[in-house]
Amino acid sequence: MQSPLDTRFGPPPGAGYFAHVSVAELAGALRAGRVSSRDLAKAALGEAARWQPVLNAFVTVDETGALEAADQAAREMAAGVDRGPLHGIPVAVKDVIDVRGLPTTSGSRHFAGHIAQEDAECVRHLRAAGAVIVGKTNTHEVANGPTGDRSVSGPTRNPYATDRIAGGSSSGAAAALAAGIVPLALGTDTGGSARIPAACCGVVGLRPTHGTITTAGVVPLAPSLDTVGPMARTAADCRLLWTAMTADHRQTSASARIGWIPPDSVHPTTPAVTRTARDFAGDLLIGEVSVPQLKELRASYRTIQGSEAYALHAERLSTAPELYSEEVRDRLRAGGEVLGWEYARALELRDRARSTVMDLLQAYDFLALPTIPMLAPPLDTRTDRIGGEPVEVNAALLALTSPWSILGLPAVSVPAGLVDGLPTALQLVGPPGSEQHLLTTAERLQSTAP
Amino acid sequence: MQSPLDTRFGPPPGAGYFAHVSVAELAGALRAGRVSSRDLAKAALGEAARWQPVLNAFVTVDETGALEAADQAAREMAAGVDRGPLHGIPVAVKDVIDVRGLPTTSGSRHFAGHIAQEDAECVRHLRAAGAVIVGKTNTHEVANGPTGDRSVSGPTRNPYATDRIAGGSSSGAAAALAAGIVPLALGTDTGGSARIPAACCGVVGLRPTHGTITTAGVVPLAPSLDTVGPMARTAADCRLLWTAMTADHRQTSASARIGWIPPDSVHPTTPAVTRTARDFAGDLLIGEVSVPQLKELRASYRTIQGSEAYALHAERLSTAPELYSEEVRDRLRAGGEVLGWEYARALELRDRARSTVMDLLQAYDFLALPTIPMLAPPLDTRTDRIGGEPVEVNAALLALTSPWSILGLPAVSVPAGLVDGLPTALQLVGPPGSEQHLLTTAERLQSTAP
Repeated sequence: MQSPLDTRFGPPPGAGYFAHVSVAELAGALRAGRVSSRDLAKAALGEAARWQPVLNAFVTVDETGALEAADQAAREMAAGVDRGPLHGIPVAVKDVIDVRGLPTTSGSRHFAGHIAQEDAECVRHLRAAGAVIVGKTNTHEVANGPTGDRSVSGPTRNPYATDRIAGGSSSGAAAALAAGIVPLALGTDTGGSARIPAACCGVVGLRPTHGTITTAGVVPLAPSLDTVGPMARTAADCRLLWTAMTADHRQTSASARIGWIPPDSVHPTTPAVTRTARDFAGDLLIGEVSVPQLKELRASYRTIQGSEAYALHAERLSTAPELYSEEVRDRLRAGGEVLGWEYARALELRDRARSTVMDLLQAYDFLALPTIPMLAPPLDTRTDRIGGEPVEVNAALLALTSPWSILGLPAVSVPAGLVDGLPTALQLVGPPGSEQHLLTTAERLQSTAP
Repeated sequence: MQSPLDTRFGPPPGAGYFAHVSVAELAGALRAGRVSSRDLAKAALGEAARWQPVLNAFVTVDETGALEAADQAAREMAAGVDRGPLHGIPVAVKDVIDVRGLPTTSGSRHFAGHIAQEDAECVRHLRAAGAVIVGKTNTHEVANGPTGDRSVSGPTRNPYATDRIAGGSSSGAAAALAAGIVPLALGTDTGGSARIPAACCGVVGLRPTHGTITTAGVVPLAPSLDTVGPMARTAADCRLLWTAMTADHRQTSASARIGWIPPDSVHPTTPAVTRTARDFAGDLLIGEVSVPQLKELRASYRTIQGSEAYALHAERLSTAPELYSEEVRDRLRAGGEVLGWEYARALELRDRARSTVMDLLQAYDFLALPTIPMLAPPLDTRTDRIGGEPVEVNAALLALTSPWSILGLPAVSVPAGLVDGLPTALQLVGPPGSEQHLLTTAERLQSTAP
C-alpha cells in the first residue's frame, strides 16, 4: 500500500538501490562499516547495467576506474582520512564534462574519439571530496536541446514512462538519479539543461549563480550562460554535493518568503502541473508577483544562446555539417542568422530585467513558478498540446527556465508531486549566491509536504 | 620670442584668457577677490562669441544661465560657502549631455527641438562643485565619428589650423579648451571621442574606467563602451575636474613605470608623431611591450560599437533616414549588418585580451602609445597618407584609442609637443580605477618636459 507521500514522490517502478537511501544515510553506513565504498560502486555499476537497455542513461561506464576509486576511498577511510559526506559515494558525470582518460562525446559525432586528457575543474573538486566517478551520462547533442532525444548515443528515456523524454540536455543524469543508479550527478545548465530533465524525471537540479562553479574543462555551448549543475534525488543530497564542490558552508534559514509568478503570463501551462507546483510551495508562498519582461527574456534567450552557440560551432558547421543531426544543425544555423544589434538589445533588456527582478528579490527571498509548463512529452514529439492549444515542445520546455539563465540567477527545480504518474516540479529562483538558502528551503518543502 | 616650452606646448595664436591661466590660479584669484566668478563667466562668454565664427565650437551659449550661476557662486562664496576648486569656474558641456532647459542636439537633425528636462547626473556633480556652465559644445553627429566635421551645426575647426579637423566626436569641447574659451569641459568617449579631439587640439582628454561616471542623462551611442570624458587644457586642471566630479581624492605617486607599445604593429603612424609622443614619456618609459590582440580589438570595436549603435538608432533609421547625414547613416547601417555570433566572438576576444593586458599591468603601471597615428587631417578628408600609404581617416583616428575602450580601461591623452605647428599626443592606459595616478603622472610629464 502506498502512503500519500509515496504517491507524490515515489520513485519509478523498479528503481534501484540509490532511490531508497539518502547520501547522509550512505555516509553513516560507510563510517559504521555496514557497507563499503566498493559495495556502493558495485551497486551503481550493477544498476547502470540493468537499466541501460531501458533508459540509455549512460554513454560510458568506467567499471575499472570506479572500483579503483572506491578502493582508494576505502583505504583512505581505513587510514583515518575522512574527506566528508561524499567520501566513497558514487557520482555520474554528464558527457560534456571532461573526466581524464574517458571519452567526452558531447552526444555528437563531431566529438567521436575525443579522450579527455585532464579532469574538468568541477571533477577535480568531486575527487577531492572523495566521490567515486562511475561513468559519463548521455546528453542531448552538443547540449543544445531540452528534450534529450537527439544524441549520437541514442535518446535517453524517462524512468517513469519509457515512451517519454527524460528532458535535456542533462538527460542521462536525471534518468540515472530517478532510476536509483547513482545518488548524485553533475549536469550542466545553459537555458535549463539541469532543471528541465530534473523536472521531467522527478529529481532535483540546481542551476548555480553564473560563474560560481568554473566551467573549465566543460564543452561550452554559450559561455555567458553556461553553468555546471549539481543534481541529486533530493534537495538534501544536492546540498551535500553543492557544499562539497564549493566549500560554501553558510548556514541559512529553512524559511523563505516566496512570491509566485503566475506562469501563464509567460507560456500556456497544463493546469494540473501548475496547481501541483503551487500547492507544493505551501505556506511559504506569501504573494503573487509579475516580471513584465519575462516574455521578452524568453526571446532573448534564443538571441544570446543562438549567437554564442553559432560562434562556437561556425567552423564545424562549415567543414562537416553532416556530422550534426538535422534538428541540431538547423537550430545552430538559425542562431547564426541573429544580428549583432539584436544581441546588443538582448543584453540591454537583460540589464533592465535584472534590476526589476533584483527589486522583487528585496521583498521576497525567492520567486517561484513551475519548472516546465507540462508533463514530460513523448519521445520525438515536437508539437504538443496544452489546454487544447498546440505548442512547440522545445520552446515550451525552455519557456520558464531560460529567463533566469539570462539573468544569471541561481534556480533549483524540486519535484512537486506526480500527475498521471508523471513528475511535476516547482522552480525556485533566488538572488546571486543564494544556493544554500534555495536548497535548504527545497529540503524543508520536501520534508513537510503532505 | 618663444621659449622651447612655448614651441612644444604653446596655445594656438590668438588663444583667449583661459589658455594662459590654470584652474588653481583662478581659484586662488577668486578667493583673493582679484577676480569674480561673474568676470570669469563674462570672459568665457566673450571668448565664445569672438571665436564662434572661426571655430564653431559651441552649439548653444547660455549667457543668462551662466551669469546667474556665476552670481550664485559669488553669493555663496561671500557667505563663506566654499564648494572647492571648481567653485565659480566656467565649464562647457558637450551637446550630447543634458543640461536642464537647454537643447540637447546631439549634432543631429533627429534631436532638433529637444529641450532637456533635467540635468544629466554628471552635470549635477558639476553644479554641486560650484562650476558655472556656459554652454553646449559641438559634437560629431550623434557622437558617431572621430572627425568632428559632420554635425547639423556644421564642422568644428581646429584652433591650430582652421582648415583642419578638431577631431571628434567631442570636437567643440577640445577646440574651446585649446582656444582658451573655457578652462574645463565635459566630453564623452566611446571609442576615443574625448582622447582623439584632445590629441588633435593639444589639450587633455580623459576616458575614465567604464562605469565610473554614470552616463544617466547622456545620449547613448554604444552603452557597453560609453563614458563621460573630463577634458581640460592641462592634466593638473583635468585632475581637479575629475576629483570634483568623483570625490576620488586618493593621493598617488607621480612616478610610474611605463611600457611602450610600438604603434606601427597596430596601424601605420607618422614617424614624427610617434617619436614626439615617445620622447615625451621620457625616463618613465622603461620597456617595450606587445599586446598581440590589439589589431583584432580594433576590428571588434566596429563589431560591438556598430551593433550597439544600430540597436539604438534602428527605429530612427527606418522612419526618418533622411535626417542623418549620408556618412553617419552609412556608418550606422553597416553596424546593423554585423551578426550576433560576431558580436559574441568580439566579447570573447575582449575577455581574453583583457587578461593579457591586466597581466602586463602587473609589470607596468601604464602602457603608452600615441593617441592618434597622425596630425589632425584637413576637414572633410576621408583618405589621407601616412608614410606614403593611403589610410582611411576614420579608421586611422580610432585605431589606437578604441582597443582600450573595448577593454573598459581608463586612458588619458596628453599633448606631447607640436610637429609642423600641430599638436601631437601621448596616450597613457592604466588599470581600472587608476585615473588619479594617470593624471598625476601626466601632470608630472607636462611639468618636466624639456
